[in-house]
Amino acid sequence: MDERSALRRLAAALPAAGDDAAVVDGLVVTTDMLHESTDFPAGTTRYTAGWRAVAASLSDVAAMGAAATAAVAAYAAPTLDEAELDAFLDGAVDVCEAVDAEYVGGDLDTTSEFTVATTALGETDAPVRRSGANVGDVVCVTGALGRTAAGLHAFDAGDAERGNALFQFTPRIASGLALAPHATAMMDSSDGLARSLHQLAEASDVGFDVSWDAVPVHGAVDRYADDEADRRSMATTVGEDFELVCTLPADAVDDARADSPVSLSIVGDVVESGIRLDGDPLADEGYTHE
Amino acid sequence: MDERSALRRLAAALPAAGDDAAVVDGLVVTTDMLHESTDFPAGTTRYTAGWRAVAASLSDVAAMGAAATAAVAAYAAPTLDEAELDAFLDGAVDVCEAVDAEYVGGDLDTTSEFTVATTALGETDAPVRRSGANVGDVVCVTGALGRTAAGLHAFDAGDAERGNALFQFTPRIASGLALAPHATAMMDSSDGLARSLHQLAEASDVGFDVSWDAVPVHGAVDRYADDEADRRSMATTVGEDFELVCTLPADAVDDARADSPVSLSIVGDVVESGIRLDGDPLADEGYTHE
Repeated sequence: MDERSALRRLAAALPAAGDDAAVVDGLVVTTDMLHESTDFPAGTTRYTAGWRAVAASLSDVAAMGAAATAAVAAYAAPTLDEAELDAFLDGAVDVCEAVDAEYVGGDLDTTSEFTVATTALGETDAPVRRSGANVGDVVCVTGALGRTAAGLHAFDAGDAERGNALFQFTPRIASGLALAPHATAMMDSSDGLARSLHQLAEASDVGFDVSWDAVPVHGAVDRYADDEADRRSMATTVGEDFELVCTLPADAVDDARADSPVSLSIVGDVVESGIRLDGDPLADEGYTHE
Repeated sequence: MDERSALRRLAAALPAAGDDAAVVDGLVVTTDMLHESTDFPAGTTRYTAGWRAVAASLSDVAAMGAAATAAVAAYAAPTLDEAELDAFLDGAVDVCEAVDAEYVGGDLDTTSEFTVATTALGETDAPVRRSGANVGDVVCVTGALGRTAAGLHAFDAGDAERGNALFQFTPRIASGLALAPHATAMMDSSDGLARSLHQLAEASDVGFDVSWDAVPVHGAVDRYADDEADRRSMATTVGEDFELVCTLPADAVDDARADSPVSLSIVGDVVESGIRLDGDPLADEGYTHE
């Protein structure tokens, strides 16, 4: 059973699961576990790890259109080094402050591989699910895609400073709140744009026609992309970008843009069925957490 | 830096940390990470692991005198086996139901060692801290101690059925709520009675005189204890029992008992300084999570 099958099984077993985060009486809760071997390339600082691990959970809160309130982290490493732990906590605290949430501590443990489990909490009276997209809506993306793909290239190239900077993304809490009154469906792009579209399509029983020219590509992608195909892959299938992908009526886009601190790009339309990029089927390829 | 030093460092850095759980605007949140090599002896079923991992976090909610609302878990294992995952979820759901909380899902991941990170949420208007014990109060313990020590012996002896039963403890949410209006200080006994007394003493700037005859010992301890010294060790220093250790005025014990579904034993008195068992110094020995 791969992780996606397991997650589907989890969602089927638990009514509150199956979206970016669970919502219980207006309280939003989400948890993630990250490991050094799969999530933190060589060169990732503990500051970046603290920032990014907490940010990944905060991104799930953003995807529900909720305000972020608090986050905790459980930190496990082969040794509990004082400077590393301090750096991790600084990163965790800083990303919480960036989205008006409070970092309220956590658990510590020793283990063979550096592992972080984070939980973020939020609040909303009207969570935005993955399931409400309507034919005729437009599909939008916040910010720009390909940032993490570029970061991975930077780490590979030994440019850890750039890699760390690219890995410290800001969770789209403010944009999620701006989109919440208008969006009909929303999720984050942690598995890449292609997979996000497939997941929104499945949950909402719709399709998407997306234009590649309209997809916002992060400036750092051009530093590393070999050609246009590589550029497209970095922006659509590498994933782990933590932007928001959402649907909303076209006439609501201006209002949402006015309140969002980052750009909101219309990348295509909600259609009856099929998921196409420039008219060609867009495969359900992307980051599978394994 | 060992884990206790690291936890003290964490508590110093973060105002909301340093107790069994953090409390933010009445919302209680706590997180824990457990690993197969240190927390789940050979023979532990995935049902027990799900139950116990979530229960450990719920116990921290109980220790604040709070009602439990929800829990999540991040599950990582070398392979995502369907039957194992189902059993884990069943255990997690069942322990939540036992304390009127909702299990609301989690995250899945593959990793080299079976690892679980759990987060539990609760609510309280008046959290009970570790710091309020007064000289003249009595110190009490819920239920009986040594259950986990007996469980470890059972697993060692190859009696996995008994081991699993002993490992499926009920978090003391109901007793915590019964004690909350009366308790001046409270924590759970996850590090053992001896260490809990030292931690309460440090937080409250008091001491304790405890009588061994008054300490409630779990019935299963007698099955495995070699002699009285071993029996005492199993009940006071092995830890991981997740009972509540609290202080309260002597004249409030009857009211607390009336509302607690499990027994509440007075084991000693709060004194000016020193931590003694039958008049002898009780060393700060116990379970150190490493």
